[in-house]
Amino acid sequence: MDQNFLSPFIESISNVLSTMAKLKADAGDPFIKEDEKAHGDVTGLISMTGEKAKGTFAITFSEKVILEITKRMIGEEVEEIDETVNDMVGEITNMTSGGSKKLLSEKGYRFDMAIPTVISGKAHVIRHKSKAPVTIVPFNTEAGSFFVEICFEE
Amino acid sequence: MDQNFLSPFIESISNVLSTMAKLKADAGDPFIKEDEKAHGDVTGLISMTGEKAKGTFAITFSEKVILEITKRMIGEEVEEIDETVNDMVGEITNMTSGGSKKLLSEKGYRFDMAIPTVISGKAHVIRHKSKAPVTIVPFNTEAGSFFVEICFEE
Repeated sequence: MDQNFLSPFIESISNVLSTMAKLKADAGDPFIKEDEKAHGDVTGLISMTGEKAKGTFAITFSEKVILEITKRMIGEEVEEIDETVNDMVGEITNMTSGGSKKLLSEKGYRFDMAIPTVISGKAHVIRHKSKAPVTIVPFNTEAGSFFVEICFEE
Repeated sequence: MDQNFLSPFIESISNVLSTMAKLKADAGDPFIKEDEKAHGDVTGLISMTGEKAKGTFAITFSEKVILEITKRMIGEEVEEIDETVNDMVGEITNMTSGGSKKLLSEKGYRFDMAIPTVISGKAHVIRHKSKAPVTIVPFNTEAGSFFVEICFEE
C-alpha cells in the first residue's frame, strides 16, 4: 500500500495513546496480512470514503493491553472487557481516524468518516472484502503490543 | 429510525436471497437493539456515507442458516463457516447494500459505499458507536431466521 495512507495512522495512534493514556507506542515494521485472524480480543473498526480512495482502519488489542490502556485513560482498574473498555476502544478509533483524516487531507485525500464499530469476542476473525492488500502494523508499548490493520483502495 | 432507511434494506435483502439462493425471506417486526450481541455466528458489515446521512448495515446469520444459503447459492454442501461461506456473506452484504443504495437515491439520499467487512466467530458482539438507535429486523426463511441491523444518523 501507498505509504501515503500508512504514515498518518501510525502518527495518529501514537499521538492518541501518548495524550490520552500517557503511553509510548512504537510502530514495528508493517507487513501484509496473510492469515485473516484479528490478533486480539477487541477491535475498533471505522470506514472512510472519499472521491479518490476508500479504506478501512481497524485497531485490535489483546485483553491485557486494553485493560492497561483503559486504566491509564480513566484512572481506575478494570477487570475485563466491559462497556467502559468498549467505549475506550470506540474513542481511540474515533480519535485516531479523526487525526488521520486531517493528515490525509494535507496530502490531498479528503475522506468522510463512517460510524465506528467495536467488535469484541475471543478469537473473532475479521476479513476486509477488498482486492487491495491489508497492511498490518504491530505496535509495542510497555503495556504489551497491539495491531493496526489498514486496507485502502484508490 | 426513519422508515426511509429501513424499507430499502428490507426490500433488497429479500430480492438478493430470492434471486441468489431461491429463498423467500419474510421480514418480521423491527425492534430497537437493547442488548448488543450479534445474534449469530457470522456478520457482514458495510458503512455508507453521504452528505445528508451516514449509516451502517449489518447482516448476521447463525451457522445453520448461512450453510443452507451457501448451499443454495453454490449448489454444493458446505460443512462449516469456511472461506467460501465468508465470501458468500461478503457478496450478500455487497449486493444488499448496492440495491439499497439505489433505492435510497430514489428517495434523495446519495451514499458512498465503504469496503465491506465480514466478521466470524461464535458469540462475537458488535457495537455501533452512534447516538442513533440501532434497529433490528428479524427475517424468517424456511432455512431458519437471520437478523439485519441498521444504524443511520442524519
